[in-house]
Amino acid sequence: MKHSSVLKIALTTALIAAISVPAFATQSAADLAAEGLPMAARTVPVPIGISPQMQALIESRVVSETMPAAETVEEWLAVQAQLDAANAQAAEMMLAKSGATYSTEEIAGVTIYRVTPAEVKPRWADTVFVHVHGGAFVFNGGKAALNEAVWMAHGLGVEVISVDYRRPPLHPFPAATDDVIAVWNNVIQQYDPAKVAMFGTSAGGNLTLSTLLQLRDAGLPLPGAIMAGTPATDLAEVSDSWLTLKGLDPLGGHDGAIEGTFALYAGDTDAADPRLSPVYGDLDGLPPSILLTGTRDLLLSDTVRMHRVLRDAGVTADLHVYDGQSHGDYIAGYLIDAPETKDAWRELNAFFDLHLN
Amino acid sequence: MKHSSVLKIALTTALIAAISVPAFATQSAADLAAEGLPMAARTVPVPIGISPQMQALIESRVVSETMPAAETVEEWLAVQAQLDAANAQAAEMMLAKSGATYSTEEIAGVTIYRVTPAEVKPRWADTVFVHVHGGAFVFNGGKAALNEAVWMAHGLGVEVISVDYRRPPLHPFPAATDDVIAVWNNVIQQYDPAKVAMFGTSAGGNLTLSTLLQLRDAGLPLPGAIMAGTPATDLAEVSDSWLTLKGLDPLGGHDGAIEGTFALYAGDTDAADPRLSPVYGDLDGLPPSILLTGTRDLLLSDTVRMHRVLRDAGVTADLHVYDGQSHGDYIAGYLIDAPETKDAWRELNAFFDLHLN
Repeated sequence: MKHSSVLKIALTTALIAAISVPAFATQSAADLAAEGLPMAARTVPVPIGISPQMQALIESRVVSETMPAAETVEEWLAVQAQLDAANAQAAEMMLAKSGATYSTEEIAGVTIYRVTPAEVKPRWADTVFVHVHGGAFVFNGGKAALNEAVWMAHGLGVEVISVDYRRPPLHPFPAATDDVIAVWNNVIQQYDPAKVAMFGTSAGGNLTLSTLLQLRDAGLPLPGAIMAGTPATDLAEVSDSWLTLKGLDPLGGHDGAIEGTFALYAGDTDAADPRLSPVYGDLDGLPPSILLTGTRDLLLSDTVRMHRVLRDAGVTADLHVYDGQSHGDYIAGYLIDAPETKDAWRELNAFFDLHLN
Repeated sequence: MKHSSVLKIALTTALIAAISVPAFATQSAADLAAEGLPMAARTVPVPIGISPQMQALIESRVVSETMPAAETVEEWLAVQAQLDAANAQAAEMMLAKSGATYSTEEIAGVTIYRVTPAEVKPRWADTVFVHVHGGAFVFNGGKAALNEAVWMAHGLGVEVISVDYRRPPLHPFPAATDDVIAVWNNVIQQYDPAKVAMFGTSAGGNLTLSTLLQLRDAGLPLPGAIMAGTPATDLAEVSDSWLTLKGLDPLGGHDGAIEGTFALYAGDTDAADPRLSPVYGDLDGLPPSILLTGTRDLLLSDTVRMHRVLRDAGVTADLHVYDGQSHGDYIAGYLIDAPETKDAWRELNAFFDLHLN
């Protein structure tokens, strides 16, 4: 057989498979495929479709191996304290850069941080946004929570109340959402709930969605709109992108520490309970939701699955996917001047402007 | 150092990197990182967040190595003929399954297929959708184009005109969009352009966007809304997901045959010309656009980059990303009863209902 004939047959097979006819595997190949699709080892360069600032961030990125979970409550508490402290320092930089200020208050027995931006925009003069911080349910408490709270306050020119909810290992579900709900019920004594947004990233996106489900079930007023940024929406199963994108995201992987935090947070509750895994919930009646993620985000699948079930339930839900970004990159405060950051603020402002009363 | 201390430090390092503080690499690690991020070899199981029908499709999937480009015009024509024939057979199945019918006509010297669904929905009784087929610019001509045309006609209950445009290797750019524009100018003699949608997948998404840019620049009426399904939007550079997702998508890869088709299509025109790479275009004034892709789609990055620049230009643009889907899986006609297919039809119908006059 001549080279060109071999080439033609090979090309034909590949392109038929590629374009519209299903590929029927041989038996042995099908057996292999049943275990999954092989991805070869590779080194991927910095994405081309992003800003120089974001390229520099990704160029400096070193992705560690997945770390094991801590083994004792003491170990978890020690790691928690170290991370909270490190991220509280980052929050101080964010405050200094943005000119935002904050006060520490107590609402319904829960510590909150009230963040005031250097300039409150007239559109947001009569409201406040409620922030539920991320950090795998276990981390980023205390002043570390200010990172994203300041990011939103500064970016949109809005006052933010950030809830310092109780966390594992000492306080599993439902302590965190109990605290968010307690603060919410106080906030809506002072503000029209239809004017108030709730938002969070990662575990904070999960807690925001879980709070909505619980408020709705209790017949309580809901926020007018929410942001669920790259939310963990399935604590029961491992969504696809945890596996396909591993190596690209500083979050590491699902096994080990992350799996450990999910288990700690769930405690004795079934991980498939919609209050833990909102992707399995009845989403009827939820408010307009904006979801953000990136093409290198280990929670890309969790996010797009949530987007689909929200839309399927008739909820207004918009999705924005940033090329090359990993988990939570859009709130990278040190990129305050990056086009991607300004783009996210523009989208959030437009979305909340449209949907909040 | 005790095990628990090592663990704590390792966990702390990983989680600090993960959650909000940038990781600063050592010099040698930074040098490595500058070349890119390493992804280890792996086998990924069938995604959990999809329907049994879509799981079965992916389970049977075998992804071939990237194939070399054909080397001569004769070879390209031979492959083209083989693929056109194979996909024309698939189109026959699609017609039989859906009960749609078609006629072959000539408009402005261009062959078109007019597809009539078994039932035209009242909402679409006074319009027609114009289809620009995909197939890497080179393939899926003739009756192969009917696959997606029937998919849309059947799913929405709308008459579709599919343009059998001229293709490489004999006819590089701008022959294809010249043909689409010629047909368009005829269609709008009979229909209100604001009521007409244009749509296409892959190369068809590219050609749809390119057509819009050329119509706008010529001061001609634009369609009322468009669908750009997993569009190839950057023929000049290799977007990130071509590399990160390689191995998961039957499309194969960018190098070899695909790169060859892009070069054939571009001919003597600079690949960065916005009429070839619409992601670099001035998008001002484009009509509402709906974009679809999947988390295992090699053109995920091309699609989300296009979504962002459309939004940045003030164009109404909605993005839907299907978990676990590879390139063009949503138009897999043999999955006519899959929930994902019905979901895509529901979104398209709602989008066009909202935006077409």
